[in-house]
Amino acid sequence: MKVLIVGANGQIGKHLVSFIKDNESLQAKAMIRKEEQASYFEDLGAETAIVDLEGDIDTIAKAAEGVDAVVFTAGSGPHTGKDKTIMVDLDGAVKTVEAAKKAGVKRFIMISSFDTRRQAILDAPDSFAPYVAAKHYADEWLRDTDLEYTIIHPGALTNDSGTGSVKVGNDLEVAEVPREDVARVIVAALENDSTIGKEFQVVGGETPVEDAVKSV
Amino acid sequence: MKVLIVGANGQIGKHLVSFIKDNESLQAKAMIRKEEQASYFEDLGAETAIVDLEGDIDTIAKAAEGVDAVVFTAGSGPHTGKDKTIMVDLDGAVKTVEAAKKAGVKRFIMISSFDTRRQAILDAPDSFAPYVAAKHYADEWLRDTDLEYTIIHPGALTNDSGTGSVKVGNDLEVAEVPREDVARVIVAALENDSTIGKEFQVVGGETPVEDAVKSV
Repeated sequence: MKVLIVGANGQIGKHLVSFIKDNESLQAKAMIRKEEQASYFEDLGAETAIVDLEGDIDTIAKAAEGVDAVVFTAGSGPHTGKDKTIMVDLDGAVKTVEAAKKAGVKRFIMISSFDTRRQAILDAPDSFAPYVAAKHYADEWLRDTDLEYTIIHPGALTNDSGTGSVKVGNDLEVAEVPREDVARVIVAALENDSTIGKEFQVVGGETPVEDAVKSV
Repeated sequence: MKVLIVGANGQIGKHLVSFIKDNESLQAKAMIRKEEQASYFEDLGAETAIVDLEGDIDTIAKAAEGVDAVVFTAGSGPHTGKDKTIMVDLDGAVKTVEAAKKAGVKRFIMISSFDTRRQAILDAPDSFAPYVAAKHYADEWLRDTDLEYTIIHPGALTNDSGTGSVKVGNDLEVAEVPREDVARVIVAALENDSTIGKEFQVVGGETPVEDAVKSV
């Protein structure tokens, strides 16, 4: 299964490409913004595609041609300018969804935010609410398609080493989760079609990733 | 016909309330953010509702109860912080649409931006693109409902006195249009059910507003 990773140069993306390298049934295609980022991924055995997520849908669709799944893990992050929040976290995500449709790729994994429900927009601090709103609309757009989607809602991301174990659910208390473990969850979701049409939160926990993902 | 005007305290909103005052078949309910804005509208014979557009849908729905149409003309404008772009121009608009549905109000007039098509997001200067994107998604949300909508796409808004004449169309060259004339176009759209399910651009022109709106 060949997987286009949109936002491969982010920290979750880099972990994901590493895990895919060690996985016999998966193959990575890293979508990145700058030529100089390519050698890092080529050294990990991944194909690369240089695409600006702020460009048009056709260019993203071209990168998605011939892959079996798309993972959207690009993000401006909550602390960039709010212009990037709407252009990347919302519009970049929607364009990637439309590009997958155009390229005929059915499987789509969205890395969302911990809680993107309407109430969470209201409850968020002013500085964070626009990010939650952007992710809310991106998730809504994906749900409204015929794609075989899985939406993953990770807790507070850390750069700690992963433990290989997590907790999944739909009304969890927010808690930390290492980016490395989120990348493991993405691999497990790609390998478990029972996650199609579902979404779930992920925080640090005691259940091995494989088992946790199978339980959703 | 009672009309809830969301964003009544904006310049288009104020012109609109004035025109409605002089129109026998229309009645205005001004949705405003601050108590101290109320007397201005009460002096024009309008009801008022104090609602924060960054609040919840239920509060907006309560303001919409018993009206026959909703006009969304609130806007952060292209020059406010980009956080307000997503919270007001996108999320505020979507919440107003959902509030209209909840209150059982079918008729909805959206004041959009001149061109909110995907290509316009790509073509816009970096500083303006987030605003275009926000309006793009708000318009898309409205089109996807069963509401009896009209989407008005005005050109470059000015504070010049209106002329009472405009040009309407769907692939116009961008040009200036006085806010006062946009308010006239809203009144004409409310009075012409032939505009239901349609959208059109408006710039300054030579055709009397009534005739121009009937032609769409």
